[in-house]
Formats: sequence, structure tokens, C-alpha cells
Amino acid sequence: MSDTPLIVGGLVYPGFEMLDLFGPLEMFSMLGPERARILLVGESSTAVPAAMAMDLTSGPKVLPDQTFGDAPNVDVLLVPGGFGTLPALENDALLGFIRRQSGAARIVASVCTGSVLLARAGVLDGRRATSNKQLFARATTEQAPVTWVENARWVEDGKFFTSSGVSAGMDMALAVIAHLLGEEAAVRTATAAEYTWHRDADSDPFVSHLNELADLVS
Amino acid sequence: MSDTPLIVGGLVYPGFEMLDLFGPLEMFSMLGPERARILLVGESSTAVPAAMAMDLTSGPKVLPDQTFGDAPNVDVLLVPGGFGTLPALENDALLGFIRRQSGAARIVASVCTGSVLLARAGVLDGRRATSNKQLFARATTEQAPVTWVENARWVEDGKFFTSSGVSAGMDMALAVIAHLLGEEAAVRTATAAEYTWHRDADSDPFVSHLNELADLVS
Repeated sequence: MSDTPLIVGGLVYPGFEMLDLFGPLEMFSMLGPERARILLVGESSTAVPAAMAMDLTSGPKVLPDQTFGDAPNVDVLLVPGGFGTLPALENDALLGFIRRQSGAARIVASVCTGSVLLARAGVLDGRRATSNKQLFARATTEQAPVTWVENARWVEDGKFFTSSGVSAGMDMALAVIAHLLGEEAAVRTATAAEYTWHRDADSDPFVSHLNELADLVS
Repeated sequence: MSDTPLIVGGLVYPGFEMLDLFGPLEMFSMLGPERARILLVGESSTAVPAAMAMDLTSGPKVLPDQTFGDAPNVDVLLVPGGFGTLPALENDALLGFIRRQSGAARIVASVCTGSVLLARAGVLDGRRATSNKQLFARATTEQAPVTWVENARWVEDGKFFTSSGVSAGMDMALAVIAHLLGEEAAVRTATAAEYTWHRDADSDPFVSHLNELADLVS
């Protein structure tokens, strides 16, 4: 653990899922500016709308702090999912940003369908990973040599932490904090957020809903 | 239930707590644009930073859709907390906005120290309410005739839904959805968000941490 704050970079793109991003970022924000600095990184500096279910343009808007071109190397890269993942899969600038940052980052984390972006960028090759349960087929049909794990709240493989859908990102973020700053820091963060941390990565309350929404993205 | 979407207005001010806002909004966003429309409302149209713990200026920035002056009447007013609550308590424009909107809204909801803003605006007079547990003293020392409830994940009193700290807002938002659109809509929303809904308003896992952070705001 160094004396400089962790730089946590949250990737934003039109139609990102708001809790995928702000759930984990809340946990890092609780560490305070001495221990963590949060940067939102987008393709340009213009405002980026979150998803409203399958609508990619009408949700609340966030303002990127940095662009793909000018962002510094981040310590923790956070890639949210959401229905906006589908067009983002065709965005070479975004995939290139993930590829570049993944090399130097200490942790590469994704929530929900964010792991499909990691897979498409090629950074999960040879890794174990998970994804949103209700849209799980969207991950497994991706042409990438990734071992997709069904029954997991999140999967840790080396520096890659991939979580299941939406709310699972908060459980994973606490695991990342435990990994980087110790278990006690993670427990204190969960308590400060009045969050009941689901600490067992291998037990997934939502695996029984596997692929219930898969027809939406097939 | 009408045919027009619910207008959900999320109040934003410098140093709001990001999960207080985006946890509940995530749940409403899952209803899709046919059933819910989300507006962020700020004092002006300039970007508003979320809190980084006690730092009110360095967090991720959101862009208001409407200002206090031009926002339409909302169906659901959502008031987040955060350390930015303290200066916001002195902001007459903000308190006036809460007062005006509370009259017409179907639901007035707060998360964490957001209920202290509601109390200061006078809209909780004669009501039962709750607040962040670790900063509970900040609510109870407010000079307003409010019955503050310690052991509650959230409190419903008429159209006022006030929740405990940060993560409790998601549980409360699902209760609001159940109230407005039926229990099944709330259960479907929680499942879509892979969120384990803490459904018992009267049981609070964090009441044992009462006032642990109270010295920060005394």
C-alpha cells in the first residue's frame, strides 16, 4: 500500500447501468480522497447518459473527467455493463482503452455485461470470469477463450475481478478493497455504507434466473 | 397507475452521496422509460460533484436535467444525503424547492441524512422518520417536531419514505415501487438488479452502530 491515493477509473459510455458504476464507486469513495481518487473516463468530454432499461439515451447524465486519449494510467479500472454494452462492443476506441489500461492497472474489474467488453477486448483470454446471470448467454457466445462461471457472485482470477449483474458489483468492490487495503478496510467501508456485504464469491442468489432475459440480446 | 410515466426527480447538490442517489434511481430505471422518467434537479444547470467521504468537491460529477426554478412537478421526489447535507441545510433555494415539490408529489423519499433536509424544510412536521444510523444525532438535534425512529431500515408515514444510510435507499426504493406499482413489480425489479431486497422496514442491521460517526458533524 503506497502513500498516494489509488486512482479508480470508471469507464462510461452511453447506456451504462448506473448502479454498475456508482455501487462500486460508492465503496471506493468511502475511503476518502487521501486513499482513493475517482475519475470517470469517456470517449469525449461531453455528458454521457446512463441506461433506462433498454433505452440508452434518456437516463441521468454524468460528466467524464478524462477522455480515452488523455486519461492517466489507473490503478483500478472499473467497467460497468448495461444495455449500452451492445453498441460499445463495436467501439474500437473503447476496446483499445480497455486494452491499454488493463496492461498497467493493478485491478481490472467489471460488473454485469462489462465482462463481455473485457472479453471482446481480449484481456480475459485464458481467464475465469462471470457476467450478468439473466443475460449470461450474451457472454458465453462471445468468441473469446474465457471460462465463464455460472454460479458466482464474482470471480477473481489474477488481477481480474468480474461480477455478476448490477448489485453484485458492490460485493466485488468490497472484495477489491479487501485485496488492496485489507479485510478490515472493506468491513469498515461496508458498515459506513450500511451495506450487508455478500462475502461469498462462490454463492450466487440469482443463478436460478439464468438466461431469463437472454432473448432481449440474441 | 396512470398511462404516463412516473416522473422521478433526484435532487442533486455538491457533496451528495452517490449511492444514496443512484441506488434508488437504478431501481426506477429498471421500470423502463414507459413507466418511469428520471430527472436530476440541481440549483443550476452546471455539473454537480458527488461526495468523496467528507470531501464535497472531488467526486464524480452529474449534470442536472432541470433546475429548482424550471423543474416540473415530480411524482417521486428523491432527496439523497451525504456530507454535502451540512451546507445544503443553509441553502434556502434548495429548501424552498423541497417544500414546493413536497406539496404536489405522490411520494417524498429520502436516503441517509436527506431526511435532515426534509426536516429543515419543515415537511416532516408531525411525522415519523429515520436517518443514517452512524450520524443519527445530526437528525435528532434538528429543531423540528419529527419522531425519529432508531431501529428502522426505512420508515413510511403517509407519502413520506425516509431510509437509513446509503444502501438502505435501495430497500426503500423497492418499497416505493411496491406501493405505486404493486409488489410483483418490486420483486421483478430487485431480481433484474440481482439485488437481495431487505424487505423488513422495521429491522435494521446497522442500528448497533448508532452515532459511531456523530463526532464528525457535531
